[in-house]
Amino acid sequence: MTHAEHIPGSPPASLDQARQLAAALLSERGEASGALIARQLQQTMRALDADGRHGFQSYLASAFQPDAAALQDAAKRYLADGTAAAAAALADAADPPRQEVLRRMNMAPGGTASLIAMRSEIAGRLGSEPELKLLDADLKHLFVSWFNRGFLELRRIDWQSPAAVLEKLIAYEAVHEIKGWDDLRRRLAPDRRCFAFFHPALPGEPLIFVEVALVQGLATAVPPLLVQDADQDSAGLRAAHADTAIFYSISNCQDGLRGVSFGNFLIKQVVEELQAEFPQLKRFSTLSPIPGFRRWLSQQPQSGGNEVAMLRELDREGWWHDAATCETLRPVLMRLCAQYLTRSPASGNRIDPVARFHLGNGARLERINWLGNTADRAMAESFGIMVNYLYDHDSIERNHEAFARVGEIVRSPQVDALL
Amino acid sequence: MTHAEHIPGSPPASLDQARQLAAALLSERGEASGALIARQLQQTMRALDADGRHGFQSYLASAFQPDAAALQDAAKRYLADGTAAAAAALADAADPPRQEVLRRMNMAPGGTASLIAMRSEIAGRLGSEPELKLLDADLKHLFVSWFNRGFLELRRIDWQSPAAVLEKLIAYEAVHEIKGWDDLRRRLAPDRRCFAFFHPALPGEPLIFVEVALVQGLATAVPPLLVQDADQDSAGLRAAHADTAIFYSISNCQDGLRGVSFGNFLIKQVVEELQAEFPQLKRFSTLSPIPGFRRWLSQQPQSGGNEVAMLRELDREGWWHDAATCETLRPVLMRLCAQYLTRSPASGNRIDPVARFHLGNGARLERINWLGNTADRAMAESFGIMVNYLYDHDSIERNHEAFARVGEIVRSPQVDALL
Amino acid sequence: MTHAEHIPGSPPASLDQARQLAAALLSERGEASGALIARQLQQTMRALDADGRHGFQSYLASAFQPDAAALQDAAKRYLADGTAAAAAALADAADPPRQEVLRRMNMAPGGTASLIAMRSEIAGRLGSEPELKLLDADLKHLFVSWFNRGFLELRRIDWQSPAAVLEKLIAYEAVHEIKGWDDLRRRLAPDRRCFAFFHPALPGEPLIFVEVALVQGLATAVPPLLVQDADQDSAGLRAAHADTAIFYSISNCQDGLRGVSFGNFLIKQVVEELQAEFPQLKRFSTLSPIPGFRRWLSQQPQSGGNEVAMLRELDREGWWHDAATCETLRPVLMRLCAQYLTRSPASGNRIDPVARFHLGNGARLERINWLGNTADRAMAESFGIMVNYLYDHDSIERNHEAFARVGEIVRSPQVDALL
Amino acid sequence: MTHAEHIPGSPPASLDQARQLAAALLSERGEASGALIARQLQQTMRALDADGRHGFQSYLASAFQPDAAALQDAAKRYLADGTAAAAAALADAADPPRQEVLRRMNMAPGGTASLIAMRSEIAGRLGSEPELKLLDADLKHLFVSWFNRGFLELRRIDWQSPAAVLEKLIAYEAVHEIKGWDDLRRRLAPDRRCFAFFHPALPGEPLIFVEVALVQGLATAVPPLLVQDADQDSAGLRAAHADTAIFYSISNCQDGLRGVSFGNFLIKQVVEELQAEFPQLKRFSTLSPIPGFRRWLSQQPQSGGNEVAMLRELDREGWWHDAATCETLRPVLMRLCAQYLTRSPASGNRIDPVARFHLGNGARLERINWLGNTADRAMAESFGIMVNYLYDHDSIERNHEAFARVGEIVRSPQVDALL
Repeated sequence: MTHAEHIPGSPPASLDQARQLAAALLSERGEASGALIARQLQQTMRALDADGRHGFQSYLASAFQPDAAALQDAAKRYLADGTAAAAAALADAADPPRQEVLRRMNMAPGGTASLIAMRSEIAGRLGSEPELKLLDADLKHLFVSWFNRGFLELRRIDWQSPAAVLEKLIAYEAVHEIKGWDDLRRRLAPDRRCFAFFHPALPGEPLIFVEVALVQGLATAVPPLLVQDADQDSAGLRAAHADTAIFYSISNCQDGLRGVSFGNFLIKQVVEELQAEFPQLKRFSTLSPIPGFRRWLSQQPQSGGNEVAMLRELDREGWWHDAATCETLRPVLMRLCAQYLTRSPASGNRIDPVARFHLGNGARLERINWLGNTADRAMAESFGIMVNYLYDHDSIERNHEAFARVGEIVRSPQVDALL
Repeated sequence: MTHAEHIPGSPPASLDQARQLAAALLSERGEASGALIARQLQQTMRALDADGRHGFQSYLASAFQPDAAALQDAAKRYLADGTAAAAAALADAADPPRQEVLRRMNMAPGGTASLIAMRSEIAGRLGSEPELKLLDADLKHLFVSWFNRGFLELRRIDWQSPAAVLEKLIAYEAVHEIKGWDDLRRRLAPDRRCFAFFHPALPGEPLIFVEVALVQGLATAVPPLLVQDADQDSAGLRAAHADTAIFYSISNCQDGLRGVSFGNFLIKQVVEELQAEFPQLKRFSTLSPIPGFRRWLSQQPQSGGNEVAMLRELDREGWWHDAATCETLRPVLMRLCAQYLTRSPASGNRIDPVARFHLGNGARLERINWLGNTADRAMAESFGIMVNYLYDHDSIERNHEAFARVGEIVRSPQVDALL
Repeated sequence: MTHAEHIPGSPPASLDQARQLAAALLSERGEASGALIARQLQQTMRALDADGRHGFQSYLASAFQPDAAALQDAAKRYLADGTAAAAAALADAADPPRQEVLRRMNMAPGGTASLIAMRSEIAGRLGSEPELKLLDADLKHLFVSWFNRGFLELRRIDWQSPAAVLEKLIAYEAVHEIKGWDDLRRRLAPDRRCFAFFHPALPGEPLIFVEVALVQGLATAVPPLLVQDADQDSAGLRAAHADTAIFYSISNCQDGLRGVSFGNFLIKQVVEELQAEFPQLKRFSTLSPIPGFRRWLSQQPQSGGNEVAMLRELDREGWWHDAATCETLRPVLMRLCAQYLTRSPASGNRIDPVARFHLGNGARLERINWLGNTADRAMAESFGIMVNYLYDHDSIERNHEAFARVGEIVRSPQVDALL
Repeated sequence: MTHAEHIPGSPPASLDQARQLAAALLSERGEASGALIARQLQQTMRALDADGRHGFQSYLASAFQPDAAALQDAAKRYLADGTAAAAAALADAADPPRQEVLRRMNMAPGGTASLIAMRSEIAGRLGSEPELKLLDADLKHLFVSWFNRGFLELRRIDWQSPAAVLEKLIAYEAVHEIKGWDDLRRRLAPDRRCFAFFHPALPGEPLIFVEVALVQGLATAVPPLLVQDADQDSAGLRAAHADTAIFYSISNCQDGLRGVSFGNFLIKQVVEELQAEFPQLKRFSTLSPIPGFRRWLSQQPQSGGNEVAMLRELDREGWWHDAATCETLRPVLMRLCAQYLTRSPASGNRIDPVARFHLGNGARLERINWLGNTADRAMAESFGIMVNYLYDHDSIERNHEAFARVGEIVRSPQVDALL
């Protein structure tokens, strides 16, 4: 096909073809040759440019509605008799054919990956094209079912892993940037562990991964965890003597799977794996950022002139290199940060997203660390303050319920002392 | 727990516990510790006896209904405005929490296998306990999604396969019984192929498998395909010179997955695999039983005294050893069998189940074979007549559509000649 | 080639070809295309019949002698100056080109297996054709080097192993016959272990394997170890509670590797593996036959009329079913057996071969068991008496040295009490 | 052990221990517990510093001589009767116990790697400590036997290979330096192939590897082969349309295996692998350096003033950027280079080492390329001239024999035209 052949305004041949193939998937032909058609559709989609994909996505979002007459019928019947069977029949009638199309698209090799890519691509247009929300919801519904915990495989990632997997860690690391292969290698040294969930339909594609440091005592700052240390043997020794596992980075890899939660499962299974490999470990904790602290602080009315003056200091580049400034600011900021992190969601407060994740998983707010990370982003977000969330097996359910039911922020006495 | 502690009429402790754990899966606790609770439930279920399992199944079938108020609301709103968004909201409201419970049960190791076993177990009670039909339908709905073609792995099975997998072939073979390991070995010889679909959540458990013989010319009888032949080298030579692949047995292995179709996909992918390994293959055909022929024939009004007398012969034990009897019966039975197999479903006829499967897949009725199999069951079902269904890549879609739309039984001239 | 073309007395074409290829391996062509020629030779050898192989073996044994002039030279020079360098030069000159031919034959895929088969085949003719002894010795020299412990891989064999490996256990089991797949399965149950050594050049071919039963207390009889027991779960429980590992069968698989010792290494590594998997195991012992007892006994002068009469009883079929006979015979036979097993090799006695193997490995003669095995062979060899050899980690070296240096038969007080 | 305890002049405890363990390997203890002692020796050796290792190597080289009396005896007997049996007995008596010690050291896990490291370490001292030559020869003798082609495994290396293997390519590449992971990745792109030999006892350690570019036409210059090109898809297309495989780099990885030849086998098997994957390939050729050209040229008497002046140009930095200089120099240098490469070894000439390797393998001198590589080393060695050696399946044996027997340099007419 040349550009000359393309009549403006009409859909290009391959978009047309994609539509026809998608429709064929639900037809008689689809019954006989579903897997083949799905493969052809897969190839056709690969040939589409951004406009073509946009067109195809809109088509998927709008073309495969449930049969209106049948659905009205089922709705009326349910309203009339309200039995479980009528409810089930109604669920059946409401099940959108779009989901069935997507399931059949998945039959092709690479189908799952291409549906995930599609959801990633439409994310940015959900606001302007609300009809895509139905497609987005159907994709998410399928992904929640397909990426069920029971189908995920936990794999350790180390220096024996394929380079093709390792380069994805470099690409996806969202918390502490991996600066190339030497940096990566340090993260996979004998006193580090990295685990990821994989799905059989996406071999070689981590869904989420966590980086763990095996250390003595609760790590309170990031730099010692990332520092280069070439000696494998002494790293092995450190691992053998560690009493604490620090989860210092956890990154989701697949934007198209947003809203499908993996993190909670991952942390808990990794705790079990580590406990089995290192029975001497006594403590499992994160070392986490506080992405919302500075923004929150800037929205607070300042209590007095002194404080205002002090906080103005924070605009100075490199203020934290000045010991005197630090001494003045530290008690104020630590108190404010403790206040920020312990506000109850029950009173309508917006909880810090990282805090919400870990507290929701049943972790406890354990420690707030002054200058735990002086990297640019951490300084910008939280003046370098970092926090430990502790995962204590015996109190996880209780903590979670306290947080989920009454919005209680379970915390250590050390945190209380800052308030 | 001793029997003495069990108060008659009350559910035994472990059934109670199973119910509580199932409920917990959907609760706040389930959010924090879903995988853990699913594992506990898994163990509790394993401890249940048949009564306990029955009780738990009834509980699952009835306890997790959609919220009635919300569903009524959504139904009314859809009836009122009929938009796609309202339809989607209705589908959401109708989605039964039971499915979510089942999805969460699946998070435990072994969860998928145990849900499949559950569906297998309730199959026999669907008639007497209609409320189980909802549970059955939900399980099937999940299985259709989870066992999507895109998640299945085709594996060749041969003498290098683990014994633990091979013994399952012996157990599951449904067409031509495998009489022990020597018999199995013959089915896996160099001029045979066996392929199965596996699912990552059921490692070592074939879902369906097909046995193929590589031969010269269209095989018209079963015994030569099953005969023992110890010589591996000459078997290898036969494979190299084969022009035809005969699919002589296809068996579903998991009763709990009934209604989830694998056979069509399996045959078509195996055709591709064989074509790649043996480019000289020209023909892909089954050698299939006709399970419904005798039953159908016994229900036909006989056209005349002669025929009646002739057919009475068939009640004599071992009639087929008598050449004269065969000579008389053959033309009559072959004609009647051709009539049986070519009746159009469009006229309301019940099509032979094996025929329906292959014609529905797009195969063509190729040849009807006199005394193709004299094993007891084949004699009882179809007087030993066997049939070839031919899978011809280029006409599969056309055949399927002809069959599905207008009930045409696509057939060879050879079959026509019998009519 | 037809028989007519074969001139009587001249070697058949393919034998000629094999000879030429073997010679080519050491030539200039061999330098450039060694791997290719080795492959051609491999194929040519496969086409040889028994006579052809015989001819080729004789050729190998005689054709590749060291250069006589060079060897004489080196011998004289060594005798003249006797330096280490002269010794090394002499070793070099004496190194037979035959070994180099064999090494080059090994370059072909399947080469190692075919050399092992060759050594197996010539075994029966070493007496009548002494020149083959040189070939035999060269093959053994190479095998000792190639099958070095450092190149062997210990693998557990269980029901997940390929059928192609499992059938070899059935074929090679030399001690307690495996009567088909059901019997095999029992030997691989959860309270049993089977380990084998493999070599990378013979994938799927066990070199030697040992069967172990995990039991409570020292097993004194074979039948309980071989009895069928379908219940996998209770077998698993038994394994968990076992305090003793009984090595009840050890079989060499490759006749062509005779004289290359694997058994000692295998037992010792399996002890380590079992100790790691079951830390609660306290005792590692064999339950072994005494193949030479009856033969020895029949060669002893009988001490008196009584004993002679008693021992004549043993010729009666099924004598051991008679309790009275047993009561009379037991003390006599047990004493005689203890005498047989404890004779010192230092005094020129021929030690029982099984005893020599285990005592030479450093095991201790622990217990002699009346009617430990009533299978035909055991009755014929040792009147059903069986013996335990105990492998006790801390005394293995001491036991071995006592046996090897002064011919001491290290034994338990229990055995002493029988004398 | 503290330093105070170490008496100057006496060997440190661990060297003593290493000696005792080595001696024990050949003793009675070694018979019973060889694998265990080998492991202890392995650990002891790891604790030795360079002096300790030196001491241990000297000990190994001198302590394990053949029994002098027995060897003299065998030498005399052979001189007396000269039979094959006497020759074999002499070979036996001459076989140094040192080889048996080394074989037993190999029984420990990691034993092979540690023996290779030992040979690598003594390489530098062979001149000053000639007694080490015996140890070196024995190690080489064992390695030749153990690293027999039949035991090597060819593996493709690509971006799916473990990082731990890939980083070894970066470390070992001896021809065209790999400048980090991005550069490596280009060498493993879809239009490149990399293959290595591995040995089962050194998992993850390549012995030798070759890098191949799939191109159209005979590649005559290095830069296009190494240039970065991010697009995987177009690289795949290039591979599909290639008619020529260029072996542009081949590197030995294990210094301790020097003299054990792998390159010839590797090239020839890779040709077969590539032919199977890309049947359209018509030409297999190297693009090779000429390491000895400049050195040779500098030793030649210059034929005349003109030439001397011209060649003096070559000392100017960056002379090749000047087109006029190139035009003048090219015919002269190309002719001289052709002369250099075609001198016959039969006349006592020292052949270029890379030429000797490929001509010895049966390749043909195909093309000499002006400025094929302007990297520093290539400029220094051969003024940037590179050469293609062509591997043509049908003439390999003939070429090899012509080279090996009469020193003929088989070459293309194109090369002849330069002379």
